[in-house]
Amino acid sequence: MAWDTERTRRLLLDAATAEFAEHGLAGARVDRIAATAGVNKERIYQYFGKKDDLFAAVLGARLRASMDDVPMRGVGADAVGDYAGRLFDHHLADGVIPRLVFWEGLERSTATAADADRVRYHEEKVTSFREMLPGLDRVAAGELLLTIVSLVNAWPVLGHLDGFLVGSGPDRAAERRAAIVESATVIARAALSRVDDAGHHHAAASEVQG
Amino acid sequence: MAWDTERTRRLLLDAATAEFAEHGLAGARVDRIAATAGVNKERIYQYFGKKDDLFAAVLGARLRASMDDVPMRGVGADAVGDYAGRLFDHHLADGVIPRLVFWEGLERSTATAADADRVRYHEEKVTSFREMLPGLDRVAAGELLLTIVSLVNAWPVLGHLDGFLVGSGPDRAAERRAAIVESATVIARAALSRVDDAGHHHAAASEVQG
Repeated sequence: MAWDTERTRRLLLDAATAEFAEHGLAGARVDRIAATAGVNKERIYQYFGKKDDLFAAVLGARLRASMDDVPMRGVGADAVGDYAGRLFDHHLADGVIPRLVFWEGLERSTATAADADRVRYHEEKVTSFREMLPGLDRVAAGELLLTIVSLVNAWPVLGHLDGFLVGSGPDRAAERRAAIVESATVIARAALSRVDDAGHHHAAASEVQG
Repeated sequence: MAWDTERTRRLLLDAATAEFAEHGLAGARVDRIAATAGVNKERIYQYFGKKDDLFAAVLGARLRASMDDVPMRGVGADAVGDYAGRLFDHHLADGVIPRLVFWEGLERSTATAADADRVRYHEEKVTSFREMLPGLDRVAAGELLLTIVSLVNAWPVLGHLDGFLVGSGPDRAAERRAAIVESATVIARAALSRVDDAGHHHAAASEVQG
């Protein structure tokens, strides 16, 4: 029955998400996921394939949802900073994406290249991101997006370094959010000003030639 | 014999560094470390205590060495950018610090708070960093250092995201280095300009009052 299948998939994905977030790929136990979901272990292989494929399904679903929850909107450096702040809020509330992203990097980064959904997901993300930064080339936009994604995902995972380098306090998440928003904004502004400069140089060169 | 003890410790640390970098804390096998080092497993407990303490010894030694290898020097935003670039070069050549830092964050972050050597190490680092940024308060300096450390350590671990968001090529490391140097420089410049503004405001206020 379709309804039952959908419900079973959902139970398994939820249990797998918690298990992978806590223990990573090698440390996760398929037995434990099945027990938590209250579903026969064979269903996991039937629906998702091997453990590595289940990890891909978990993170892929989570990232897709985050793209819907945190739309890219507006144009210019302040819009980029605003996006970084909303992504920070989302990932902090979500609680598992940052851990999954770094487990993946440490344990299965090479396997991702073959995942067509992931390739498409990131391509769509870069395309949307470039709409916020008119004139910026693909590489420069990708660098900035990677910087934002790195900072937003690293903070919840490197909480101990945060404590050492900055200290802790009740407003610490809000402070770090502000620092990341400010950083994303000034980097975007610098990148856009180089585009403007290049435009002026180009216009000036055209004038001379004309 | 002191020489033999030192040599045994070194063999064990080298084997443990490779094992932890590859498999993390939970995935590392003390048996494998002992076999690689060609040393009896009991020596590990004798010299370093339990597996978690061995991890702390490995990363602590590596971080201390990196502070000597990548001195903080100069004053101002360009000096900060230069430092970020040299740290990037060092961690890329070192090959294991970025992985160890993220394994630690995922697997033993709460244990670090009790490690007096780590507390002291990070405190010294922030103190040196602040000498590059006259006038910047402790929190603002810590935020910027955390941003640099996050970006430099995240890149080698998130190589798959780098491929998705930017693409790969023979000069990719040099490109990412340049992006991180530029980012660190413009963030530092913005932070220092706020210090200057505050100074001017303060001077202006003093004048009015005087």
